[in-house]
Amino acid sequence: MAKKKLNIGIIGYGFMGRAHSNAFRKVNNFFDLEYEPVLKAACARNAEKAQDFADNWGWESIETDWRTLIARDDIDCIDIGSPNNTHRDIVMAAAEAGKMILCEKPLAMNTGEGEEMTAAVEKAGVANMVWYNYRRVPAITLAKQLIDEGRIGRVFHYRAKYLQDWTISPELPQGGEGLWRLDASVAGSGVTGDLLAHSIDTAIWLIGGMDTVTAMTETFIKEREHSLTGKKQEVTIDDACAFLARFDCGALAPFESTRYARGRKNQNTFEINGEHGSIFFDLEDPHRLEYFDNNHDSHVHGWQSIHVTDFEHPYMDHYWVPGTTIGYEHTFVNAIADFLKSLEDGQDAMRPNFRDGLETQYICDAVLKSAKTGAWESCKA
Amino acid sequence: MAKKKLNIGIIGYGFMGRAHSNAFRKVNNFFDLEYEPVLKAACARNAEKAQDFADNWGWESIETDWRTLIARDDIDCIDIGSPNNTHRDIVMAAAEAGKMILCEKPLAMNTGEGEEMTAAVEKAGVANMVWYNYRRVPAITLAKQLIDEGRIGRVFHYRAKYLQDWTISPELPQGGEGLWRLDASVAGSGVTGDLLAHSIDTAIWLIGGMDTVTAMTETFIKEREHSLTGKKQEVTIDDACAFLARFDCGALAPFESTRYARGRKNQNTFEINGEHGSIFFDLEDPHRLEYFDNNHDSHVHGWQSIHVTDFEHPYMDHYWVPGTTIGYEHTFVNAIADFLKSLEDGQDAMRPNFRDGLETQYICDAVLKSAKTGAWESCKA
Amino acid sequence: MAKKKLNIGIIGYGFMGRAHSNAFRKVNNFFDLEYEPVLKAACARNAEKAQDFADNWGWESIETDWRTLIARDDIDCIDIGSPNNTHRDIVMAAAEAGKMILCEKPLAMNTGEGEEMTAAVEKAGVANMVWYNYRRVPAITLAKQLIDEGRIGRVFHYRAKYLQDWTISPELPQGGEGLWRLDASVAGSGVTGDLLAHSIDTAIWLIGGMDTVTAMTETFIKEREHSLTGKKQEVTIDDACAFLARFDCGALAPFESTRYARGRKNQNTFEINGEHGSIFFDLEDPHRLEYFDNNHDSHVHGWQSIHVTDFEHPYMDHYWVPGTTIGYEHTFVNAIADFLKSLEDGQDAMRPNFRDGLETQYICDAVLKSAKTGAWESCKA
Amino acid sequence: MAKKKLNIGIIGYGFMGRAHSNAFRKVNNFFDLEYEPVLKAACARNAEKAQDFADNWGWESIETDWRTLIARDDIDCIDIGSPNNTHRDIVMAAAEAGKMILCEKPLAMNTGEGEEMTAAVEKAGVANMVWYNYRRVPAITLAKQLIDEGRIGRVFHYRAKYLQDWTISPELPQGGEGLWRLDASVAGSGVTGDLLAHSIDTAIWLIGGMDTVTAMTETFIKEREHSLTGKKQEVTIDDACAFLARFDCGALAPFESTRYARGRKNQNTFEINGEHGSIFFDLEDPHRLEYFDNNHDSHVHGWQSIHVTDFEHPYMDHYWVPGTTIGYEHTFVNAIADFLKSLEDGQDAMRPNFRDGLETQYICDAVLKSAKTGAWESCKA
Repeated sequence: MAKKKLNIGIIGYGFMGRAHSNAFRKVNNFFDLEYEPVLKAACARNAEKAQDFADNWGWESIETDWRTLIARDDIDCIDIGSPNNTHRDIVMAAAEAGKMILCEKPLAMNTGEGEEMTAAVEKAGVANMVWYNYRRVPAITLAKQLIDEGRIGRVFHYRAKYLQDWTISPELPQGGEGLWRLDASVAGSGVTGDLLAHSIDTAIWLIGGMDTVTAMTETFIKEREHSLTGKKQEVTIDDACAFLARFDCGALAPFESTRYARGRKNQNTFEINGEHGSIFFDLEDPHRLEYFDNNHDSHVHGWQSIHVTDFEHPYMDHYWVPGTTIGYEHTFVNAIADFLKSLEDGQDAMRPNFRDGLETQYICDAVLKSAKTGAWESCKA
Repeated sequence: MAKKKLNIGIIGYGFMGRAHSNAFRKVNNFFDLEYEPVLKAACARNAEKAQDFADNWGWESIETDWRTLIARDDIDCIDIGSPNNTHRDIVMAAAEAGKMILCEKPLAMNTGEGEEMTAAVEKAGVANMVWYNYRRVPAITLAKQLIDEGRIGRVFHYRAKYLQDWTISPELPQGGEGLWRLDASVAGSGVTGDLLAHSIDTAIWLIGGMDTVTAMTETFIKEREHSLTGKKQEVTIDDACAFLARFDCGALAPFESTRYARGRKNQNTFEINGEHGSIFFDLEDPHRLEYFDNNHDSHVHGWQSIHVTDFEHPYMDHYWVPGTTIGYEHTFVNAIADFLKSLEDGQDAMRPNFRDGLETQYICDAVLKSAKTGAWESCKA
Repeated sequence: MAKKKLNIGIIGYGFMGRAHSNAFRKVNNFFDLEYEPVLKAACARNAEKAQDFADNWGWESIETDWRTLIARDDIDCIDIGSPNNTHRDIVMAAAEAGKMILCEKPLAMNTGEGEEMTAAVEKAGVANMVWYNYRRVPAITLAKQLIDEGRIGRVFHYRAKYLQDWTISPELPQGGEGLWRLDASVAGSGVTGDLLAHSIDTAIWLIGGMDTVTAMTETFIKEREHSLTGKKQEVTIDDACAFLARFDCGALAPFESTRYARGRKNQNTFEINGEHGSIFFDLEDPHRLEYFDNNHDSHVHGWQSIHVTDFEHPYMDHYWVPGTTIGYEHTFVNAIADFLKSLEDGQDAMRPNFRDGLETQYICDAVLKSAKTGAWESCKA
Repeated sequence: MAKKKLNIGIIGYGFMGRAHSNAFRKVNNFFDLEYEPVLKAACARNAEKAQDFADNWGWESIETDWRTLIARDDIDCIDIGSPNNTHRDIVMAAAEAGKMILCEKPLAMNTGEGEEMTAAVEKAGVANMVWYNYRRVPAITLAKQLIDEGRIGRVFHYRAKYLQDWTISPELPQGGEGLWRLDASVAGSGVTGDLLAHSIDTAIWLIGGMDTVTAMTETFIKEREHSLTGKKQEVTIDDACAFLARFDCGALAPFESTRYARGRKNQNTFEINGEHGSIFFDLEDPHRLEYFDNNHDSHVHGWQSIHVTDFEHPYMDHYWVPGTTIGYEHTFVNAIADFLKSLEDGQDAMRPNFRDGLETQYICDAVLKSAKTGAWESCKA
């Protein structure tokens, strides 16, 4: 059966541009879907880089101005993989042009932008999704399923951390290609928007909304050379952030993130402790979910390490055989598969949408505010 | 060579009474020391229980009034294993009588008591130690050694948690024998004094003093039957407590404790992230220390799991052969060995002393205060 | 720069057909190579299935007779993903036609076939490779590198196991699509050729040739319904196989494989113990390599868990960012990248070639022979 | 209630002498028993060493000739902790004298001795036990319980290894105090009698008798200085031994042991794979038992890590609180507690007795014989 074509125009050719391109190319090999993404056009300011990127990934054409891309009639869907400070303007224009929008996380530089953007896509009635890809790690999706099955019950505790160690050297410059995440004027914030936003999105998906937070942040290296200016400049991002939260459900929750944790490459973990059981996940072993079931006979109580690679585990029937793992890139494949499935059946798989992304934005802003005031702050709109 | 006798009088016959008795009995089998504890007298209000306890552990005599015990000329050292609300009065009397004092943790019900007690032992000039036994888990002592060797460098992060799950059932009563830790009038506080005090003592020993904290506490089960009254009464302890800390050295640190973490039996963990390396410990696998050394060739970087059972590891040359583990009880044996060694050589192994225990008390009180005020509070005297 | 086209004709559309197709499609997205595979034609006896497969993976055309495929002038390279009993005839014809050949493992049904096939490709002088994909798990390639760096020294011990649990149910039929691995007339043997062949290929790559073996096999379920006949028939494969080996280097080595190990999904492990260090690998956590370095200070001796996801780890600079994992499928991508690189530079990356695959075949046959004779058997030609 | 005294005379003051002494001293502190061991006399050829040992552990008197010890009327039970080549003569004399006998493992130098010794104690009708202490690791006792509860079902596979690394250096001498295990004339064999005997005793206790074996052994360092002669002499023990076994129940089983496995300090592991579940144990983490239960819902299938420290776990209600570990020494305490309990109630806890120890001896001898013949050998009498 012929597939319905969904023409994609991508903006950004960096790490996320590659991850999205790969997902668009692969999704139909693994998922049986009505829709098929077509890699129509790749957009970047530098034509040569855009062309190299397009050649490498099979984009049919290039653009150097995203406004031109949005204006093209042969584009159905704008995919945003460019730095955070570009999201708002692109989204506003794309929504107005009636394009579907896939936007990298975090949604916006701040709550104000996020509200505008969410209002715009909702008013335009266009399909929209934020690429919080970790919801599609099969083990995390399984965690959601176990909760929905009632296996955890009333949640007492949630704890999350997201630790990396790649910015410890004071020699590392800030800003510019590959390093814009260290430049607050481009990234909006440091680990809060880059890493904790992931932790928060996962948390509110799993156990519901967050009520209040108290936070602390730190910038360990006060000055770094800026790649674009060649000068030593103040570092204004948060190198590390920790906060305590109280969820709407009553759970207590410490969250923590840093890029100064020696030996932690990408340690995104969460643990949930409930009345009937507990769950633990660590992105450094992404194919495993640790689960404690209090209903077992008590002399065999123990954390069970679920190797989330069986056909009955989320997404895994689309890949290889039990016992074989998928990788980081497949979280994007799974996400776009769900998005396409939503277009097909009108169901709710197209999540997190912009409104969900906005909820995370409110929390990030409350965290950053509390780090300044020293007081508990509300996470609500 | 004949040993110098150190006559001990113990107060309390519960869990800690047993742990201390065992340590006194065993220490000279494993350590070559000038001093030898003599199990002279055990004291408890109930004579029958005191006698059973004495018979079981080999205490030569019993007393039913601790004032009588302290008054005995044949007692050199008072060992306190009774509930927290008894510590102050016993210490004040024992110090006045010029006895050495070993006191279970936490030192006191609060800072006020702790200051009085510390002043008393210092004025009396009597040997004193608080049983924060986890400093003597060989893996934790090794952590201290690695830090002192400069293997960690500037500390960016410390994180600790102490999770248990034994009070989740609402049917569990509060108060009375074995359950006094759930009764604030006897225990002073809940997890803060019972569990976080351990975490804090370890932390300040390893990386130095704590400056400020912001905290939250929760009591999940609001009312429980009281064992002594038979009536449902308000639960006034903290079932859970989480706090953020800033250390004097600049490190950021989330701490958390609860008795509502399904599947965590005694999960006392800490992690330290520094410039040159990191350390992780979990009391559920107490014979292991995880260590990340950033100085290795980078393609073999990885957390190394040190099986802390070799002759060159702290305390382990006193026990069996490499590869064989010791248990929980040996942390007390090691502690009393260090105490006796201090008597012998006048060196500093008799730590934590009361002043150290008081430092932890200040922090616990700051945590409990912050949980009420919602503000950052100072940990200093 | 325009790529050199390498036109592929694939035979087989099952699990391995999918894995190879995916690798051909992806390799140029991730590796910068002169050559580019072109998915020219897919061949299967059933035209409809061939067409579905071709549509799904982007094969340009189909064939239903592999002899026709081999005869096509526009095919440069024959890729064999069909069952074991088809390898010999296809290879003989393809070699004669001067085609490059990529052949799934095990190379052949037995040593006799393997010798013929190896002679044929060597006589024809065509590029040839056997898909022992696990050599390209980055952690296993890193193990090879550590050995080559002299970090292990004289090897005393090697131990390997490959455990699965998918055939325990007596209800599982044998034979037919997806189950031909249970039919000895198609597969040649059971776990020996399917799983131990992997373990052996890895072992001889890492520490050199094997000298002698003594073995035992077992078939736990004696009869199973045959999918093609619908009748209960004797099961003639080995459900399990264990053997002891002595390597040329003097190392002692137990090997074991089964499909009856409850809870082991794909547990392919090996451990090497040498004079200076040890290595451990488990395919269920494929992104980790455990390494013990005896040169460290002895008080920090410990197994270090290398998260094999850094840019300096084998193959990983072609993928995402440090800390993010790749999956099972990438072992095939890495293999074809090495094959293409070999075509480009004439270097030795095109390994294991047929001669290497033949060496494993000798060992498998010695194992199966010993299981019958009960005696030690030679692994040599 | 007054205890019945059981007067012990111990022979040997080395590692095992210490372990046994400690157990005798502690058992009544932790177990409520009718009988109480009395540390009556310690025997060693060197009077000074005997006296030091007696002083350290509280033995009331010493002897320098074990025949004198056995002749003493005030000795009820002879405990043998001396080297393997002394066991037979001591046992024959003690049995004749009607003494109870506790004998370190392995029971004898060989089957011939073992048969004599077993016949002697059975004829004399004296209580007898072999110190295969690992049956009393709570996690191993729990494994036995899970099997007895039917949780494993038909056993397909058993695999065991016992790896150490303390003899790799060629500088290590053989023979003499602390090193007699490297001298075949004293030890009988190398790793087979020292380590594999443990693995075998555990295995046959858990899944029943062994039928046939095929084995290989190796001595890596051919000559070592002998401590007693000061000369380089041939090393005649087995440094390493691996064998394949078939159990009476049909299970296939590789066993392996060595003292040349870098980084493995005391890695005594076993795994059992059965119809309904699997079990894994590792002595380096002795407080854990890994259990796979195939009856769980399949999407939560996973190995559960049982922290064997709860009151309902074997032996653990005698010690501290849930979540706190015991150590190596407690396996001896548990063993003597069971022995004393057997005296009290006449039940079967006094196992392994000499007949059980003899069964292990038959297997060890079959293993050593097969290593010479290269053939499968019978494990039966």
